[in-house]
Amino acid sequence: MTDVALAVRFFLQLAVILLVCRAVGWFGRRYLGQTQVVMEMIAGVLLGPSLFGLLAPQAQSWLFPQTAIVGEAPIRHPSMSVLYVASQLGLVLYMFLVGLEFETSLLRQKAKGAVSVSLSGIVLPFALGVLASTWMREPGVYFNESAKAWEGAVFMGAAMCITAFPMLARIISERGLAGTTMGTLALAAGATDDAMAWAMLAVVLSSFTSTPSYALWAIGGGALFLCFMLLARPLLQRLEAWTQREGTVTQPIAITTFAIVSLAAWFTDAIGIYAVFGAFVTGVCMPRGEFSKGIRLRVEYATSTLLLPLFFTYSGLNTKVQLLGVGNVMAIALVVVLFAIVGKWVGCMLAARLAGETWRDASAIGVLMNARGLMELIILNIGLQHGVITPTLYTVMVLMAIVTTVMASPIFAKWYGTAGARPSPG
Amino acid sequence: MTDVALAVRFFLQLAVILLVCRAVGWFGRRYLGQTQVVMEMIAGVLLGPSLFGLLAPQAQSWLFPQTAIVGEAPIRHPSMSVLYVASQLGLVLYMFLVGLEFETSLLRQKAKGAVSVSLSGIVLPFALGVLASTWMREPGVYFNESAKAWEGAVFMGAAMCITAFPMLARIISERGLAGTTMGTLALAAGATDDAMAWAMLAVVLSSFTSTPSYALWAIGGGALFLCFMLLARPLLQRLEAWTQREGTVTQPIAITTFAIVSLAAWFTDAIGIYAVFGAFVTGVCMPRGEFSKGIRLRVEYATSTLLLPLFFTYSGLNTKVQLLGVGNVMAIALVVVLFAIVGKWVGCMLAARLAGETWRDASAIGVLMNARGLMELIILNIGLQHGVITPTLYTVMVLMAIVTTVMASPIFAKWYGTAGARPSPG
Repeated sequence: MTDVALAVRFFLQLAVILLVCRAVGWFGRRYLGQTQVVMEMIAGVLLGPSLFGLLAPQAQSWLFPQTAIVGEAPIRHPSMSVLYVASQLGLVLYMFLVGLEFETSLLRQKAKGAVSVSLSGIVLPFALGVLASTWMREPGVYFNESAKAWEGAVFMGAAMCITAFPMLARIISERGLAGTTMGTLALAAGATDDAMAWAMLAVVLSSFTSTPSYALWAIGGGALFLCFMLLARPLLQRLEAWTQREGTVTQPIAITTFAIVSLAAWFTDAIGIYAVFGAFVTGVCMPRGEFSKGIRLRVEYATSTLLLPLFFTYSGLNTKVQLLGVGNVMAIALVVVLFAIVGKWVGCMLAARLAGETWRDASAIGVLMNARGLMELIILNIGLQHGVITPTLYTVMVLMAIVTTVMASPIFAKWYGTAGARPSPG
Repeated sequence: MTDVALAVRFFLQLAVILLVCRAVGWFGRRYLGQTQVVMEMIAGVLLGPSLFGLLAPQAQSWLFPQTAIVGEAPIRHPSMSVLYVASQLGLVLYMFLVGLEFETSLLRQKAKGAVSVSLSGIVLPFALGVLASTWMREPGVYFNESAKAWEGAVFMGAAMCITAFPMLARIISERGLAGTTMGTLALAAGATDDAMAWAMLAVVLSSFTSTPSYALWAIGGGALFLCFMLLARPLLQRLEAWTQREGTVTQPIAITTFAIVSLAAWFTDAIGIYAVFGAFVTGVCMPRGEFSKGIRLRVEYATSTLLLPLFFTYSGLNTKVQLLGVGNVMAIALVVVLFAIVGKWVGCMLAARLAGETWRDASAIGVLMNARGLMELIILNIGLQHGVITPTLYTVMVLMAIVTTVMASPIFAKWYGTAGARPSPG
């Protein structure tokens, strides 16, 4: 396939993806009270083998071809590679924006309550994830045959601990709850849990790839990267002064910012802890103020409405709802969904109540922490790509992510009213 | 190469490209009075075989690999495909924004002067391009051996007629000359010339690919597309009412817009008249007002500072300055540059003077019309991709594009002062 033909295919894919996202998003907001991002997760699944591929297998595999033949050897179709890289660019920009919104000061303000909520938001889901993994021992069904039992257990535990931090942050700020005790507590706990889950993922990946040099690069390189970024922080703060001097985020400021983000994404990707980490940390270390406002305004839409749908579609192409019908997979899926909700919602709710919140606030914190959203898809794709989990477990976990995310908005609205007409990525 | 490895390479490419663009752009603005976009054209050439590949051939071919081996067959490296498609996405968004800035009312206002300036901006450069092509008859040196003499002549003519319309528009609006006779005249003439040049290119491509069905699709499909867009215009105008109702460009509005642009890009790409046409026409047909302002603000930077540098690099990878040293190529290059300047600058200046402008205004119009900028690179890449021109002629024409674009800003500043501190894509 020539580059020109690849570009033709890409624009058609993009058009179909965006039209489906628009239609599904409209339906979800109008009739289900859902945010755009949740509906885009679902739109991605619909475009994969779960619906489009079921209804029109030939059209689906023509639009999203998986393999090409060179000589006689089947290779990965370059169209998929293009889709993958474009979706990674979207994720990197997105995680950078998430980092940019992250307020480290929150962690200090509500340290005590946050520690207990975030700890129970880790311990209970992790324990239930490990427990669930003990029922997934059939070799090659849920975990790759080369995955050791403890690796599978830690992966499941980590995957259960994820919180859709960006979505949580958006819902809280949209309802004007950012300054409240409840809001601050949920933000601090959500951020901590995500950080912990990612750290666990790094351990699993280091162990799984099992080349000691990989683990060394991942852990040593990761530590080095964090130190470097903390040291570079004063330098990065100059971007704010530069923005104020120019009066706005000019093109040289934007190009410098993009270069730094790409460099961080490349480095963390190359050492094996993924581009999304690097982008997120870079966002956290960037100055707040005119700079962050200007960059957000100029990058957000190209990211969340143009590139992120590609990621949802890429994820959806790997999701095969039919796999739920094989053997006892459906039973396992129900257990996983139940464990996920009990572990995260109930766990966080009790901890928040003990920390002195009212039942109403505690329950609201629980349901927000429970939403897995986009963050879960990221961790699942990494697990699938590294061959830790199989398409079956991947599908089970995508189902869990969608269910926990879908329930958040309507239930939260019951407690705090329906202010969420504005779309909120997460 | 796995998708993950491709993404790692992509982020490194992006980081290097952006850092080089930033450094070269800074140097150009500080010491040469050049705009960012001109310097990015040069940065792209420096990253190709002309400098980076000359100094460090192995590092260059590692960072930008051209071929991969599958089994025993060499194939195009997927990394190049990714770079190509990402740069096409950048071009499409860019041309959409250019279309969005295009004021058709200008053409009517200054119809008489514009006709004479734009006509002489076509006739003289076209004639000189055809003349130059007669010295490029050595088979396979400048034009592909399968290209007929008249096809080469028309391609050269069309390539000479190009004006960097977006750059011209930006320079004029930055200096507050948009309402003046001179400004209106230059804008109208520049837009007309570009449209004519693209039409000529379509004829060459139809003839060159020589499958009658191709020509039929290109011409019939193109006409159909234009009719459809004109008919759809009232429908597109609703985007403005929708934006005003919401108070801002919301995500559903943005996703709808991106879907329409992708669809138009796909259609025009598929029928062989290139995605950039479709994107440009879509931009022209979109409503002006809150909608266009909001979209521009949110898309411009991701396009011009993140994706467009990829296009400049892709172009630069095809440019090999060394080819100028072979045979009499340097002599031809000098003739082409001279013809380009005489044809466009002198031609337009005389026409503007005859239309009643002062010598100062007439000369300013000439030098603006003379800049070829990014638009020339687009037409050259299409010619190279279709095998109409060889890398040698491609390099000659890139040199011409850079020279004519580099001279515009400083010379224009002599007549109208140095207001151009703001970067201006084009």
